[in-house]
Amino acid sequence: MELADLFATRAARMKASEIRELLKLLDQPDIISFAGGIPDPALFPHEAFRTAYAEVLNGPNANAALQYQVSEGYKPLRTWIAAEMGRIGIPCDEGNVFITSGSQQALDYLGKLFLSPGDTALVTWPTYLGALQAFNAYEPTYDRLSPGTGNMTPDAYRAAAEAAGGRVKFAYLVPDFDNPSGRTLTLAEREAVLDLAEDLDIAVIEDAAYQALRYDGTPVPPILSIDAARSGGIDEARTIYCGSFSKTLAPGLRMGWVCAPRRIVDKLVLMKQAADLHSPSINQFAIHHVAETVFAEQVARIRGVYGARRDALLEALEASMPAGVSWSKPEGGMFVWVTLPPEIDAATLLARSIAEARVAFVPGAAFHADGSGRNTLRLSFTLADERAVSDGIPRLAALIRDETQRLAA
Amino acid sequence: MELADLFATRAARMKASEIRELLKLLDQPDIISFAGGIPDPALFPHEAFRTAYAEVLNGPNANAALQYQVSEGYKPLRTWIAAEMGRIGIPCDEGNVFITSGSQQALDYLGKLFLSPGDTALVTWPTYLGALQAFNAYEPTYDRLSPGTGNMTPDAYRAAAEAAGGRVKFAYLVPDFDNPSGRTLTLAEREAVLDLAEDLDIAVIEDAAYQALRYDGTPVPPILSIDAARSGGIDEARTIYCGSFSKTLAPGLRMGWVCAPRRIVDKLVLMKQAADLHSPSINQFAIHHVAETVFAEQVARIRGVYGARRDALLEALEASMPAGVSWSKPEGGMFVWVTLPPEIDAATLLARSIAEARVAFVPGAAFHADGSGRNTLRLSFTLADERAVSDGIPRLAALIRDETQRLAA
Repeated sequence: MELADLFATRAARMKASEIRELLKLLDQPDIISFAGGIPDPALFPHEAFRTAYAEVLNGPNANAALQYQVSEGYKPLRTWIAAEMGRIGIPCDEGNVFITSGSQQALDYLGKLFLSPGDTALVTWPTYLGALQAFNAYEPTYDRLSPGTGNMTPDAYRAAAEAAGGRVKFAYLVPDFDNPSGRTLTLAEREAVLDLAEDLDIAVIEDAAYQALRYDGTPVPPILSIDAARSGGIDEARTIYCGSFSKTLAPGLRMGWVCAPRRIVDKLVLMKQAADLHSPSINQFAIHHVAETVFAEQVARIRGVYGARRDALLEALEASMPAGVSWSKPEGGMFVWVTLPPEIDAATLLARSIAEARVAFVPGAAFHADGSGRNTLRLSFTLADERAVSDGIPRLAALIRDETQRLAA
Repeated sequence: MELADLFATRAARMKASEIRELLKLLDQPDIISFAGGIPDPALFPHEAFRTAYAEVLNGPNANAALQYQVSEGYKPLRTWIAAEMGRIGIPCDEGNVFITSGSQQALDYLGKLFLSPGDTALVTWPTYLGALQAFNAYEPTYDRLSPGTGNMTPDAYRAAAEAAGGRVKFAYLVPDFDNPSGRTLTLAEREAVLDLAEDLDIAVIEDAAYQALRYDGTPVPPILSIDAARSGGIDEARTIYCGSFSKTLAPGLRMGWVCAPRRIVDKLVLMKQAADLHSPSINQFAIHHVAETVFAEQVARIRGVYGARRDALLEALEASMPAGVSWSKPEGGMFVWVTLPPEIDAATLLARSIAEARVAFVPGAAFHADGSGRNTLRLSFTLADERAVSDGIPRLAALIRDETQRLAA
């Protein structure tokens, strides 16, 4: 148990990236993990991928699938995505679609495109850790977007950005089933973000990685959809939608896309040409094949399984957790966000949890651009089967009770 | 012939990226193209790829091939590459190997790692256009490396870099069968580059994209091999070797690697985690399978075909070209570099060549960081079959004669 020991000693002082690396290594059989934000491999459409790669490599496109490709991506795949975007309320064509190596690459490119050192990015507290890591390379300052409790005035954001030595460049958010908070923005909250962005004349980055994973409730239109309707069309909009096949089909192909005004797509294509030429041709052909044949049924299947796991986790939390602990009730996605009593530090709790309860989760401070949120933690339910939930959550709840008593003593 | 018309009108004023995009589109049946620097798809190991993807997706690694992967890359592939590096004189282990999405991504990351605006990168005149494009994103100044005629003194490079507002950060070069010049550096020239780098205390980026494609002559040790021997081991070295499977197996998988001191690998891994998490898992598994089964015979096969095409091109140039035109005699790689009489502008010649001779090539100025080299051009022989050479080169030669007369008139 060397790793667990290391964790127990160091977790409270570790950097986010270190925690994430260690959590990966901690996938040991006797640890119940709610930590990794990864899809359940048992749900990958294996047969569809086998067929897709075989047909691509045996068919008339075999040479093209192994050869260099244009930087914007394989046109039939971009056309398929444009139709899918239309289906969720974003009228566009394949010229508005740019293929990326996962949505993480979109975040990196958008950071590179918009941010100079000292510029300000608006993000929620908490927000996706990977977005902060991508943007950090370009040395921005962060200011807080508060869709629920109300944003600051545009003048206040402007003044703060100037004081930090730059300008506000974009607002980044995960409007559907946020990682880590599980939160979905209402229509009014989305409109308020757009109002703010218009006043500040900045871009909105809509991270839609979980958009397809809704288990109940009513879909809320994507921000890009609202923006395009207001502005007179996608090419007049300011919102950049980042989509991903990682959660619906499989993450190992690193396949995502940007749907955006053509002026933005043009810039991203030039960046990609200089940075990695294009995303792998063969995976674009294979994903296109799989998407055309099984996308709808695959999404329905994972919605069923993940929805049931979310239900089980929420029931277990309700049955086990002591007073003073609260959590989100997400309508989709992969995560439940837990708020502990203010005196409990989730990183310290994790160290004890690994050593004593043998339960893993991700402490919440890493998701906060200002390092706050020390009494929060993220639980992922995508890999949490019935036994994990029925054993793990009571063990975690007992530990939280014990930690509360320890701190009170 | 709309594209050709556009080309004829605009080629002389076009940016490098525009020229490259147009050249791609110009792959028309009646144009003989020596332009695109791409491998011949007829030589891709199709059967090995079919087997590899089928076995990966049917075998015990199917889930891992579709799931997230560590940022440094699939360990068995890194181990295979480390052994291959050892075979060419670079003793290392898999901890010195980092998987990239093509060697282009390595160049982008190295630009990001080393360059701040105003810093100086040392490159040859001419050099690989894609390297300039990757580095340009980080706003460097370029100074000239002259391995053949002798470099400037370290003090002169230092003074020039300071005058440009930064410091010299690295020397970049393609020591084997350079793109575009076809040139291979001698052992003494490689040692002189290392001497200079040591004196300036800078990194050396060794772009080895063509290293395996030697058709005759004696292999010269990689710069990293010389450096590691001098420094006492790879982890004490300053050279970063960038390898690629694009020219040996297939470019469409976007699979390359960096072999470097561990301190550099560690930094690149963190950058990749923030930028695109990892290169596609499934392609790493598939490339590993193909490399283990057919790498040596595949390399032997393409050496045979490309070597014969190089011979045919050199013979045709010898037989057709007028006095005043000279060209490189590369021992490997994909390119022959042609120097025209000084009064001929290769971009203007290209416009005429597309319109009249129906022969495409890449004008050389784009490969020069200072925009010089207007009387140079690059011919690629990887796709040039017997008919293309026997028809195309005499047509190009006749056009050069005509252009010389036109300018003299």
